[in-house]
Amino acid sequence: MDIRLNEEFARELLETLRQDQLSVAAPDLQKFAIDQGPVIDYQEPVAVVWAESIAEVQAVVRAAATHHVPLVTRGAGTGVSGGAHATAGSVVLSLTRMNKILEINAADEIARVEPGVINGDLNLAVAPHGLMFAPDPASFKISTVGGNIATNAGGLRCAKYGVTRDAVLALDVVMADGSLIHTGHRTFKGVAGYDLTSLFVGSEGTLGIVVGATVRLKYLPTIVRTLAVFFPSVQLAAAGVLAVGAARVQPCILELLDGPSLKELDFRNGSNLSTRGTALLLIQFDGLAAELEESLAAAVLEELGGTVSREDPAEAQRLVDLRRNNRGLDVDAENRVGEDVAVPRSQLVHYITALEEMAVRHGVELQVIAHAGDGNLHPTFSVPTFEPARIAALNAALDESIEKALELGGTITGEHGIGQYKLRWLPLEQAEQVLELQRSIKDLFDPQGILNPGKAIPAA
Amino acid sequence: MDIRLNEEFARELLETLRQDQLSVAAPDLQKFAIDQGPVIDYQEPVAVVWAESIAEVQAVVRAAATHHVPLVTRGAGTGVSGGAHATAGSVVLSLTRMNKILEINAADEIARVEPGVINGDLNLAVAPHGLMFAPDPASFKISTVGGNIATNAGGLRCAKYGVTRDAVLALDVVMADGSLIHTGHRTFKGVAGYDLTSLFVGSEGTLGIVVGATVRLKYLPTIVRTLAVFFPSVQLAAAGVLAVGAARVQPCILELLDGPSLKELDFRNGSNLSTRGTALLLIQFDGLAAELEESLAAAVLEELGGTVSREDPAEAQRLVDLRRNNRGLDVDAENRVGEDVAVPRSQLVHYITALEEMAVRHGVELQVIAHAGDGNLHPTFSVPTFEPARIAALNAALDESIEKALELGGTITGEHGIGQYKLRWLPLEQAEQVLELQRSIKDLFDPQGILNPGKAIPAA
Repeated sequence: MDIRLNEEFARELLETLRQDQLSVAAPDLQKFAIDQGPVIDYQEPVAVVWAESIAEVQAVVRAAATHHVPLVTRGAGTGVSGGAHATAGSVVLSLTRMNKILEINAADEIARVEPGVINGDLNLAVAPHGLMFAPDPASFKISTVGGNIATNAGGLRCAKYGVTRDAVLALDVVMADGSLIHTGHRTFKGVAGYDLTSLFVGSEGTLGIVVGATVRLKYLPTIVRTLAVFFPSVQLAAAGVLAVGAARVQPCILELLDGPSLKELDFRNGSNLSTRGTALLLIQFDGLAAELEESLAAAVLEELGGTVSREDPAEAQRLVDLRRNNRGLDVDAENRVGEDVAVPRSQLVHYITALEEMAVRHGVELQVIAHAGDGNLHPTFSVPTFEPARIAALNAALDESIEKALELGGTITGEHGIGQYKLRWLPLEQAEQVLELQRSIKDLFDPQGILNPGKAIPAA
Repeated sequence: MDIRLNEEFARELLETLRQDQLSVAAPDLQKFAIDQGPVIDYQEPVAVVWAESIAEVQAVVRAAATHHVPLVTRGAGTGVSGGAHATAGSVVLSLTRMNKILEINAADEIARVEPGVINGDLNLAVAPHGLMFAPDPASFKISTVGGNIATNAGGLRCAKYGVTRDAVLALDVVMADGSLIHTGHRTFKGVAGYDLTSLFVGSEGTLGIVVGATVRLKYLPTIVRTLAVFFPSVQLAAAGVLAVGAARVQPCILELLDGPSLKELDFRNGSNLSTRGTALLLIQFDGLAAELEESLAAAVLEELGGTVSREDPAEAQRLVDLRRNNRGLDVDAENRVGEDVAVPRSQLVHYITALEEMAVRHGVELQVIAHAGDGNLHPTFSVPTFEPARIAALNAALDESIEKALELGGTITGEHGIGQYKLRWLPLEQAEQVLELQRSIKDLFDPQGILNPGKAIPAA
């Protein structure tokens, strides 16, 4: 991209935007160059733009279409697959200033929001109505609803409440030509036409730009019960996940943490979790049957050899917060990659055993945490330095972990998305014809390829 | 379509199929001409074909592609929007013989099925594992899982358990060129690539032919509690739906039946429901908190003026069966049309009042039943004869009921689909650009237009 084009584009933008909505300042270009995913091709955008209305998003897209400028739309930039990494010559379009909750309808159990509304803010706003926005990625205190939608974010509670797609009823979307469309319905059910709403959810800003959403809210539970169950081995903890399932009780949270994860949490937070067992199942039940469900789960887990501790609400909250924040302030880097595979739950024990074996064989460090209720694992592989041999060993372990998950009937990404970082693995999961079909859909929605190019689907 | 083409097509089919898998006999052509939707353009197919394997479906599609023969794929033909009505020159492809349950995995809580498996059969097969396939359209004893997927079927239980889309994890789909693709994942969560699975669910056989499905099962509740709550007016019953919601308890079934519906049920079944009140809310709770939820709901509904009756399991089952079968053996006809709108629940009272007013004004009969927990209403309008003036009045009332639902923020179809019968109303709900986008997707998936043409999306 040459400077002259950039200037014309900027001039056109400034017919609509104020000067303070456009920046080419170096600190901004650096700040908006990457999200929290591993960086494999660092590129700074040529500009950052903050839109404050749908009309402004439309103006930005129209100008981008005229000048063939790629747009990387982003919310809080908390994604961990590089879906919001800038690419060569791109303009980053931030929607964080479009942060109004437009409507809360407690009787209809829905809310209408702008895309920049923070997930946690929406939850605070609807809680007085006895409602919640269920998707709760670890980043929920800072991530935006629009970003949650772009990545089809999951979280801890989706074992019971589903993922972001399950919470989205309707979308307002700016298309690649700057036009605005509405998909979906305000009602809980609706089958008019093809499910365009689901097609946009999780498409990482590559098919259109979500500028508004109608979301379905769930009932905020008034009763919550939490169990911490320690096991002598991570395999036994994984077997506990199946035992809870076999008891046919549905936790809202069912997290597994292995020994190295417990040690790291202790190191970061001064806790003593690792002295209590080698692996932990952190289990939460909510709703009117929470106490009974807790008893049923505790019984089967004690039977299995777990050490069951019923946690008081304060300690339970502390444990859940520790788990949510286990990544700390670190973002992934070339020498430390948190994975996001999912496997059928019956394969959890085999898979964790295989992960441990491959970590030893490749000489890399491994920590395993998992949204185990969904079979969604976040193994983190790391090596202490950036030496090429170390990085090669790390990548070999990563590749093998992905292949093993697929061999066991799993997927390469349970909730983080393909973004930019996982493009190389998608052809292992999806046949070329399926990839080509998706490329055709991308071409149909965005013929010029200006919407977050190089993300979500690998190039042909 | 001329006979000669038909014969060549047939000859090609019979290279793969046995003679008894292809029929051009008049009784078959009549039997497979229509589903249970209203008939506005009766057409018999030129042949009926029963495929018994994926390879046979592929052979049929390849031959259809070669000879430009439209294919109307169908399961049990229980759809009520005419999505499986034959069209001019079409061949009906029945998948009812592909009825094997390929796998039940109780630990993973999934099943893999062929498309012709009967919903009720799948439920019987998974019940011993403490599991259920949640979608339960009224036709569940005879309708197929493939048909449920094609229409994104709802049912009574979706108030709590969601619709068919929420139960489908992965699909095997034969595309318009006869190729076979796999979409989705065996795991509960997965965000690899665009959500093609949701795009196929509800697409009524217009984008591809679903020949296999991996479905997520839910826990079969062991405790069920049922309330029959009679109200002095249908408006008060509708207000009861909001009251239950405001109490933040989630029934698995929340059905509303108005006075004329109760009278018809009594007439058909010899029951005495209409002597007990003017409108009925039939409410079921399931799961470990069912008893407590029942008490909470009963309290708010008594407070509202309802006459609450706790039903024993046998009577509860009888009431639910009566409700499921309220359509009896009648299928819709030009003089009797069951609608399928949905409105935000806060609008239920207004909408039912408006329906009653318009029925009187147009001089047509009205019965209202509703999956009220979802705001999904099935008003049935009827006139006693086929006189043109009567039919015109009926259609005027239907059109007005659709427009009113849209005015209140609703949709023209909550769970039955557009099929053929509702094409005329879709442009009232969706903008031309959205329709055109869907036509483009249809063209992308089926360039020749051989897959169930003239359904789901109105022609340009």
